[in-house]
Amino acid sequence: MPTEAYLRKREKLIKKDRALRPDTVTSQSLTPDERCADEILRSMRAAEAESVWGLDSKSNHPHGSQQMFPGMEFLTAQETIIGTKVFDIISKMPKGGLLHAHLGATVRTDVLLKLGLRQPAMHVRIFSALTPSNLKTVLPQFRLLPQSQRTRIASITDAQYVLGSWVPIQNARNNFDQTLGGPPGFDRWVNGSQMIDPSEAYRTHNTGAQIWDRFEKVLDVSWGIIFNLPVFTEYIRELLLSSIDDGISYVEPRVNFWDKYMRGEDGEENLPHRVWVQVFERVVDEVRTQMHAQGRDDEFIGARIIYCTLRICEPAELDWFLDDCFALAQEFPHLIAGFDLVGREDSLKPLIYYYEPLTRFVERQKETGVHVPFIFHAGETCGDGSPADLNLYDAILLGTKRIGHGLSIYKHPSLMEMCKEKGICIEMCPISNEILRFTGSMPMHPLPAVLNHGVHVVLCSDDPAVFGNMGLSFDFFQVFMASEVAGVATLRSFVWDSITFSSLDDTEKEEAYEKLERRWALFVRYIIDTYESTV
Amino acid sequence: MPTEAYLRKREKLIKKDRALRPDTVTSQSLTPDERCADEILRSMRAAEAESVWGLDSKSNHPHGSQQMFPGMEFLTAQETIIGTKVFDIISKMPKGGLLHAHLGATVRTDVLLKLGLRQPAMHVRIFSALTPSNLKTVLPQFRLLPQSQRTRIASITDAQYVLGSWVPIQNARNNFDQTLGGPPGFDRWVNGSQMIDPSEAYRTHNTGAQIWDRFEKVLDVSWGIIFNLPVFTEYIRELLLSSIDDGISYVEPRVNFWDKYMRGEDGEENLPHRVWVQVFERVVDEVRTQMHAQGRDDEFIGARIIYCTLRICEPAELDWFLDDCFALAQEFPHLIAGFDLVGREDSLKPLIYYYEPLTRFVERQKETGVHVPFIFHAGETCGDGSPADLNLYDAILLGTKRIGHGLSIYKHPSLMEMCKEKGICIEMCPISNEILRFTGSMPMHPLPAVLNHGVHVVLCSDDPAVFGNMGLSFDFFQVFMASEVAGVATLRSFVWDSITFSSLDDTEKEEAYEKLERRWALFVRYIIDTYESTV
Repeated sequence: MPTEAYLRKREKLIKKDRALRPDTVTSQSLTPDERCADEILRSMRAAEAESVWGLDSKSNHPHGSQQMFPGMEFLTAQETIIGTKVFDIISKMPKGGLLHAHLGATVRTDVLLKLGLRQPAMHVRIFSALTPSNLKTVLPQFRLLPQSQRTRIASITDAQYVLGSWVPIQNARNNFDQTLGGPPGFDRWVNGSQMIDPSEAYRTHNTGAQIWDRFEKVLDVSWGIIFNLPVFTEYIRELLLSSIDDGISYVEPRVNFWDKYMRGEDGEENLPHRVWVQVFERVVDEVRTQMHAQGRDDEFIGARIIYCTLRICEPAELDWFLDDCFALAQEFPHLIAGFDLVGREDSLKPLIYYYEPLTRFVERQKETGVHVPFIFHAGETCGDGSPADLNLYDAILLGTKRIGHGLSIYKHPSLMEMCKEKGICIEMCPISNEILRFTGSMPMHPLPAVLNHGVHVVLCSDDPAVFGNMGLSFDFFQVFMASEVAGVATLRSFVWDSITFSSLDDTEKEEAYEKLERRWALFVRYIIDTYESTV
Repeated sequence: MPTEAYLRKREKLIKKDRALRPDTVTSQSLTPDERCADEILRSMRAAEAESVWGLDSKSNHPHGSQQMFPGMEFLTAQETIIGTKVFDIISKMPKGGLLHAHLGATVRTDVLLKLGLRQPAMHVRIFSALTPSNLKTVLPQFRLLPQSQRTRIASITDAQYVLGSWVPIQNARNNFDQTLGGPPGFDRWVNGSQMIDPSEAYRTHNTGAQIWDRFEKVLDVSWGIIFNLPVFTEYIRELLLSSIDDGISYVEPRVNFWDKYMRGEDGEENLPHRVWVQVFERVVDEVRTQMHAQGRDDEFIGARIIYCTLRICEPAELDWFLDDCFALAQEFPHLIAGFDLVGREDSLKPLIYYYEPLTRFVERQKETGVHVPFIFHAGETCGDGSPADLNLYDAILLGTKRIGHGLSIYKHPSLMEMCKEKGICIEMCPISNEILRFTGSMPMHPLPAVLNHGVHVVLCSDDPAVFGNMGLSFDFFQVFMASEVAGVATLRSFVWDSITFSSLDDTEKEEAYEKLERRWALFVRYIIDTYESTV
């Protein structure tokens, strides 16, 4: 046995080493109920690490049967996760805000397909004939067509189908070839074409460049269905309601404004960006009214848009988007939360390429008093000193409010210091990082290093419709299972930080904390009442 | 274009962020030749990142054809690496000391097999009949037998072979069934049974627990051939000579003293540990003499042993080993460099379990003046707050001289501070970490984070015979390719640190630096003379 003196010295060192963590303060002020819930959760995690994730457990991995482990690859673990007690608890946790998610990948693909099927003018086409063996590689293209372009073509799979011609979605589904599974086969094909599956992520596309290529393609499929006002409207509603179901009460989606006009119900592509924002606002208000009517005011705070365009444009083109964003922020100051550039950092333009338009944008804000902070993607890379890694320097020097991903920030001591000084929070997307092959599994993820250096982090789902990590429960679960340091204080700290570092104003934040506090107490009670006797 | 002022501010921030790196001082004092070599190497890396490792390149991955990338999985990259110019350069670099390698896995398996084949008393047996399909899973067991147990059994693969019976190795090889490849098939089988192949590391055994299981089994095969004085003697010679061939001039192997007696040429297991050390000393002296005779004094400095036992014993048993180590250190103070406990940290006993015997050992050293520092394995884990991760606290509190692996130290700000204050260096084993599935590939490895926090690191090969990363060239290559920060100063800093943090005394270090400096100048000249015109 070690001496008492040694154990004290050791304990003191461990405390010192963890003193900077954002959850350290939280852990010192836990209520007795929270402490009890913490013990329950820790025991449960340790028990399930053996009983569910232990050496005898096997997953249906695309490589064949494979041993499981806590925090293992999400796509092969998901079914198992859902059956655990820890997941039951985390799925019931109030989660605060979702601060990093790309709008076009935030609603379940099967729900999106239903929205698409409701539109008589929605059409679909393909450019290679479908066979049972190519269902995964031949992707559908969707579009809501104007009257003049609509067709009555009966099927996308019969011998008469001319590749590239548009077929009404209902026809395509109803007459989907029986050898391909008929209408249910159509649904499976369309849903699969909007997601990444385990054999892609962990076998055929198991490198960053390959998986990103697949990722962009499946995003395009969804966007074809979403990109018209009737679907877009219901899509936003689904995002808000399904988030609420997962305990999320505030969302700040990144909306891609690259296309200048959206299609309307008539199929004409003529709805400008301000209409998109108006629809967003209307749906948010309707959901708020709906929640109020149900006596569920505590469950919903609101939603705001982070204006995005793609890091493929030339600096001069970016000026257009910045002007556009500025105009929207002037008209909808309560809705435009920030500005970002999106796309694969490892291959597209670095932030510094846009230095001039970006600094002009900042100047203009100073002159006018309109405030649209940068909320930049940066450091979504495994590079060390690569342009994507260097984006972190520019994001911070250009005054970013938060950092999207910031995966490589753990390598940068000075940048972590600056994040602390300037109150810059990192939007970490653990499951996204793992599926897009920036990390092998959750235990390899650098999140704990960032926390231990005292940098504030919020957990985010990034593109949940593509990855299957709907809501925030799965990301919280993976993080919680892969760390023996994490406890109730860690969870609470993530949740509260998602309000603190959101774009809500101070009054709104106060109200949000109050709502959270009430729900959190109920949540902690749920843990104790349901599981105290089982551990 | 960014303004000059912005670029200066950015450059200043990058410099500050990298100011703590051990190679920062080195980079400020590079000679003109070194600067020129640095430019050549950086251009070459950038060019080969495209021409060799770019998007159009494909590897023969066990998952099927896969895109390559710099720092990709070693086992599928090795052939490609060998053909690159960057590797040509790195393979010619003088590398200083190899400070972390387990003796039983330091000589190429084909060379070891030849050593075994020279011993008439070497026998082999199996416990399942070999078939063409089970050659990878049925592992041979080797033993040099005493006269009374030797046999004349003709074959290990014919129908008469009784499973479990010993067959002379030459018979087993000469009569190895033709359907299994005859004698060359025997060689392939024996060599393969001592290594991890890509389909194991990246498919069938692609988790920490599974790959470690395979790892332990293949180590046992080799140890059966090595563990007798005639082979052991030549094995040490091979380790030293092959290290010299790779530019390594000093080695500090970890020797496992778990078995109390080694077999002699007569097959009797009766040679105590002091005989092992005597043989080690004799071979080191012979190699030194040989190098001197060849006018190659600069290429060899020496070798020392890190005494190891396994972290499976009870504390009382550990006392025996510590006494034994102490006695050896008294008799061979110039040869026993330190003490360590080895074995899989994620499942075996943590350091704190041995607190009492370990602290008694320290006390005894203080009383007697005999100095045997701890050089502990710690933090070879992806765990966060797990017992293996906590080993880092105990290693440091117990006064470790260096840390073996220390993979998880990047999560611990206070421990990194203590490493800097106390001059504790981390023995990082990048390729080992990747093959044993602690990291997915070199770009995901936390090494840059550790360097950027100012902690000194030496690169090590760990178990090169099992992984195929013979020498240190491959580990240097992977690290160099996966970082755009690394340059000639980084390489030089690693090399010099491998002397600074070795167990050599100050006088020996001075001599080692002098030798290195002469060889380094030649190396830098080689880069310039060979490649200046090509970039």
